[in-house]
Amino acid sequence: MARVVQKFGGSSVADAESIRRVARRVVETQRAGHQVTVVISAMGDTTDELFDLAKQVSTNPPARELDMLLTAGERMSAALLAMAIDDLGAQARSYTGSQAGVITTAAHGNARIIDITPGRIEKALAKGYIVIVAGFQGVAQDTKDITTLGRGASDTTAVALAGALGAEHCEIYTDVDGVFSADPRIVPQARRLPRISYEEMLELAATGAKVLHLRCVEYARREMVPIHVRSSFSDRPGTWVTHYEEGDAMEAALISGVSHDRSEAKITVVGVPDQIGKAARVFSVIAEADIDIDMIVQNASVGDHSTAISFTLADAERPKAIEALRAVQAEIGFADVTYDDAIGKVSIIGVGMRSHPGVTARFFSALAQAGVNIEMISTSEIRISVVVDENDVEAAVRAAHTAFGLDSSSGEAVVYAGTGR
Amino acid sequence: MARVVQKFGGSSVADAESIRRVARRVVETQRAGHQVTVVISAMGDTTDELFDLAKQVSTNPPARELDMLLTAGERMSAALLAMAIDDLGAQARSYTGSQAGVITTAAHGNARIIDITPGRIEKALAKGYIVIVAGFQGVAQDTKDITTLGRGASDTTAVALAGALGAEHCEIYTDVDGVFSADPRIVPQARRLPRISYEEMLELAATGAKVLHLRCVEYARREMVPIHVRSSFSDRPGTWVTHYEEGDAMEAALISGVSHDRSEAKITVVGVPDQIGKAARVFSVIAEADIDIDMIVQNASVGDHSTAISFTLADAERPKAIEALRAVQAEIGFADVTYDDAIGKVSIIGVGMRSHPGVTARFFSALAQAGVNIEMISTSEIRISVVVDENDVEAAVRAAHTAFGLDSSSGEAVVYAGTGR
Repeated sequence: MARVVQKFGGSSVADAESIRRVARRVVETQRAGHQVTVVISAMGDTTDELFDLAKQVSTNPPARELDMLLTAGERMSAALLAMAIDDLGAQARSYTGSQAGVITTAAHGNARIIDITPGRIEKALAKGYIVIVAGFQGVAQDTKDITTLGRGASDTTAVALAGALGAEHCEIYTDVDGVFSADPRIVPQARRLPRISYEEMLELAATGAKVLHLRCVEYARREMVPIHVRSSFSDRPGTWVTHYEEGDAMEAALISGVSHDRSEAKITVVGVPDQIGKAARVFSVIAEADIDIDMIVQNASVGDHSTAISFTLADAERPKAIEALRAVQAEIGFADVTYDDAIGKVSIIGVGMRSHPGVTARFFSALAQAGVNIEMISTSEIRISVVVDENDVEAAVRAAHTAFGLDSSSGEAVVYAGTGR
Repeated sequence: MARVVQKFGGSSVADAESIRRVARRVVETQRAGHQVTVVISAMGDTTDELFDLAKQVSTNPPARELDMLLTAGERMSAALLAMAIDDLGAQARSYTGSQAGVITTAAHGNARIIDITPGRIEKALAKGYIVIVAGFQGVAQDTKDITTLGRGASDTTAVALAGALGAEHCEIYTDVDGVFSADPRIVPQARRLPRISYEEMLELAATGAKVLHLRCVEYARREMVPIHVRSSFSDRPGTWVTHYEEGDAMEAALISGVSHDRSEAKITVVGVPDQIGKAARVFSVIAEADIDIDMIVQNASVGDHSTAISFTLADAERPKAIEALRAVQAEIGFADVTYDDAIGKVSIIGVGMRSHPGVTARFFSALAQAGVNIEMISTSEIRISVVVDENDVEAAVRAAHTAFGLDSSSGEAVVYAGTGR
């Protein structure tokens, strides 16, 4: 009897009818011979509504109490799903994150899972119950206070539980059919990927694909939990995110997918004195402001003994970064800070890159033929990213998708209902 | 620094503005020099709405999951109150029943408190926090599952916590000004009782007064916790429910209050054979059906060697009782079962009865003068109850209130906004 963990998001349990549909799927899985643990998100807009209530009673709700409030949402959907399963003649038991043994740090609003102590779940599974666990939440190891795990956290709960329970795999149900070779809204010929490695999924998630959250994939890789991303609205197979053996990579496609991200901005620090330590000081100021940066380009010094330093970061962090730099302008002695928020990042990802040369050349040549100018470049072992003008993003994605032979030739219908999550 | 427990019901926290008003009162209490623990109910109609959701996903929601669902309501209001207090510059920490150490039996939907282990609350109070506890809920000692305590349970939570914390007293905030000498909707001259004994309050609660639940008063008497019942909409003093010393009873009014109850029905079993054990069998059948009965009258046998047995019970239990009796009609050999649901019970209550004779005579004579016929009578040491025709209930309550000198002569405004709870 194989163990399976299934995770359903808020859109899959938006109302009573959706909950009953999820219940039927869960019961079918048990009747097919599995021990089933389900991780569930709050119903539809519940979390937003609770957050609104909080803002009505407090201008700045304390994080501990916000966690206490918001976690009520998953508790309700978990209990409702258990009732709907009971109504189908199977037996279920719902548990809060705390009861399920999800032990976290005390960082309210963005806690991390430290440990899973699934004693109660193990007992319930042994008795034949379907186990329902409220996602997104845990209990702080030191304070015993209720915590939430931050964005994408129910996925992480599911993968962590799958690891702790030794589950065969973890199914993440969403409103799309799986992971695609590109965003089908931009590339109609994009195809569902039947299988992808953890490393590729990490690069895709980090560069704009929204179907799985980075932290969840990191956890899955560490715990070696295969993830099956699939639609809660159909029975079609989705995308398996798994470990690749050495041989798999050799046989893999050169490129698995093309991702894009319009949420970054570029900041340029102009006229940085060409002296030892000045460039380093620019980046230490940004780090002290707790801002993550992505790509960096430093222009060589030309004659006037100054350089220009450009870097990209989340556009939401841009004002904070510029303020931090302005505060040290006199000290560092640079001339100005400028920015450009009309940029986009396009990335090609594939483990096949490791063993096949010439990928960069093919990518850049496709971009050139499409008339796309490259502003910045960064690479990893299995990824090449370029920053381009925001208006060129779609052309760049399509050009790369075609150049690496990813366009679907079968004419098979590709179902892609939204942005995922 | 005295410890106080304050309890606010659902109508006191119906919306964000109400929650902010409660927060102001709680913070004022702390600033007046008290250590404050607050027990809170779910907001307004939350519990009903959650129950509706349960009925949408399940025809017969399992009790364990219903408890898991419904307890989310108090958790939300507790967190919101903590936020509102924080917004006023004080510090609060909310706790679920389980976190607050409310240990109960495993009887989902109607659990009883076995023990309170208030270690976390003690620590939070010692650090200067205002403690907010979700009422109505606890955790089962054996299964560690979340439980609810049944009707009137947040009051009981508050009194139990007050006992465990050694609080000076427990304030129960409601939408009326306190406990009244009669229902002011029937007796406009009814007056607020400044003080009443646990025993009198128990009799009042058991005979129709709705302001405090029986179980809560029983708990307060056992733990010797003084209760202050008062309005959450004013600063006026309410009613103190306390222990009476021997001397207090001597000085007490003959009668403290008049209560009434229209929710009972009378069942009469006609033609019960006048043989040993037949009458007892009637009552054992009712007991086996798990039905509580209130008053009993057995008519003396007259000639035909049969008797009639009448008893009262909650009208809601009447169909079940009649069904149970019909099932044994042949076995017992009685002639028929009839019922009357147009009855009412009127009770006078006072510890003064213990030391003053003539109370029964004065009560019955007042009823006679008002033209009210008495159908059944029952008494305790501090209570006399009569069953009358439902149409005579108001006349009987007014006659008794006047006969025992309870009518307010001061012309003082009596505020009574509803039925309480």
